[in-house]
Amino acid sequence: MARIAVDAMGGDRAPGAIVDGAVQAARLLPVEVILVGPEERLKKIGMSESPALTVRKKRDSSITQMVELAKKREVDAVVSAGNTGAVVVAASLGLGLLSGIERPGIAILIPSLKGPVLVIDVGANVDSKPLHLYQYALMGSVYMREVLGKQNPSVGLLNVGEEESKGTDFTRESFKLLEESKLNFTGNIEGRDIFLGTCDVTVCEGFVGNVALKVSEGVAFALKELLVKELRRTFLNRLGASLLLPAFNRLKRQMDYAEYGGAPLLGVDGACFICHGASSAKAIRNAIRSAATFVSHEVNRRIVSAAVQPEGASA
Amino acid sequence: MARIAVDAMGGDRAPGAIVDGAVQAARLLPVEVILVGPEERLKKIGMSESPALTVRKKRDSSITQMVELAKKREVDAVVSAGNTGAVVVAASLGLGLLSGIERPGIAILIPSLKGPVLVIDVGANVDSKPLHLYQYALMGSVYMREVLGKQNPSVGLLNVGEEESKGTDFTRESFKLLEESKLNFTGNIEGRDIFLGTCDVTVCEGFVGNVALKVSEGVAFALKELLVKELRRTFLNRLGASLLLPAFNRLKRQMDYAEYGGAPLLGVDGACFICHGASSAKAIRNAIRSAATFVSHEVNRRIVSAAVQPEGASA
Repeated sequence: MARIAVDAMGGDRAPGAIVDGAVQAARLLPVEVILVGPEERLKKIGMSESPALTVRKKRDSSITQMVELAKKREVDAVVSAGNTGAVVVAASLGLGLLSGIERPGIAILIPSLKGPVLVIDVGANVDSKPLHLYQYALMGSVYMREVLGKQNPSVGLLNVGEEESKGTDFTRESFKLLEESKLNFTGNIEGRDIFLGTCDVTVCEGFVGNVALKVSEGVAFALKELLVKELRRTFLNRLGASLLLPAFNRLKRQMDYAEYGGAPLLGVDGACFICHGASSAKAIRNAIRSAATFVSHEVNRRIVSAAVQPEGASA
Repeated sequence: MARIAVDAMGGDRAPGAIVDGAVQAARLLPVEVILVGPEERLKKIGMSESPALTVRKKRDSSITQMVELAKKREVDAVVSAGNTGAVVVAASLGLGLLSGIERPGIAILIPSLKGPVLVIDVGANVDSKPLHLYQYALMGSVYMREVLGKQNPSVGLLNVGEEESKGTDFTRESFKLLEESKLNFTGNIEGRDIFLGTCDVTVCEGFVGNVALKVSEGVAFALKELLVKELRRTFLNRLGASLLLPAFNRLKRQMDYAEYGGAPLLGVDGACFICHGASSAKAIRNAIRSAATFVSHEVNRRIVSAAVQPEGASA
């Protein structure tokens, strides 16, 4: 049974939503959840009723303490909705990197017209080299196969046009490395292709990936705000909207990042899941589920195996 | 009366939509429109009935020919929905750059919760230096003031976090230049802030801006597709949707890029507007209107004046 440490104090809705999500996971999933944070405070909100849930007193920051637990192999994975930069630094330094991997990358699942697609890196690094992009593609492919069950995932390189010559020296060199690899590389893609589901894994440098992710959040939020305003404008609109409530809710579920849980920090020698700062209990529960799958499918062993034997052997 | 050359053959819906838009503009606006393209073909579709509309026979590519006309000052502005890269190259080389400006930048108006905001550069260059970002900010500010009537427009630097230290050496150096300038610089912004309307002008390097623009298109398209699918699912949904048709149409208009017409290529010594490849007649008409405003408000003279006297003098 996977042992998952959860940062009780990380995130905008901590500790309430975090504790709720951890309790739900401990009850519903075959996992052991270790909440890390101030013991007294957490005990007070009554989450210690589940046998699969324990609390660790906070000595250092909860992130540092979680990483310590993972380093000593007292837990198999860590989950945090705390500051992303702090989690990346603590996990990278505390756990070290996998053999054959030079930089960690945050891999996020994004809803597309053809189901969830993976984008890596969305901000662990902002000084990537082409080789790092190849390694992101490799790690993302293993993750999509092992955790999402996608066989032979296709890989696209985020660029400003589809032709091989497009972009910068950086993208052209990355293109070459990906093309020469045994990955299922399908070429350059543009920003809009991510959401059309053109390929299963999109690789990009962390600055660009971070902007792409936050732009997509911003557009979705703005559209929702404008739509809600329109729907409240007249009586007929409100009537129509009430008829469509189930449809809007279905749409909302399809676009809900919380369905996919957290984003793995791929490349560290351990399992580390980073959750959105605004994570709900459901998002935390699903991140814990993803972390458990990550552990049981031995994603890291398969990444190392693929990185060491780049002839396409999949462990 | 501004004389505007329009590329009759550029764009996915050329020449039909282009000619329609040009005819509308020639009738409705105080402009003289010169359609550039194969004379016989254009005459056949009967658009030469307006006195303010003439046709130029195509010798070279229509883009090259338009730039030639602008260079000889036979027209005041050029408008094309053709290949963006080709327009950028033809205009930059053919017209040259404004005094004090080292790189041209494509400035696009994007709908936000607080009305249209400008993003520059969305792909004219993918090898910008910090000084170019400062010049983009300066040109974008002049454009927002002169063409959109926005007094003292605020400028944000697109980054991966709000703190000054965030990002790369490139963004930190750009931040410094912007902060020391007389522009109304309000600091770093993140991808989602563009659509919240946090600032009037967002500056970024062309690769990032291009990805941001195309990601926003992709998200909006995917959401629309998913919504339409939901609305057709059941009889009650279709009933509700029919009640909401006016609301959806209002929303569509608010998000319609065609309302804002084309994107100016700021920095070239002339007026050059680049339109979306999928431009409708309305988009072309509005681009011609923007080009006419650009000319009548002497945007370029004001850019040169602001670039030469960086003490904030606004010509």
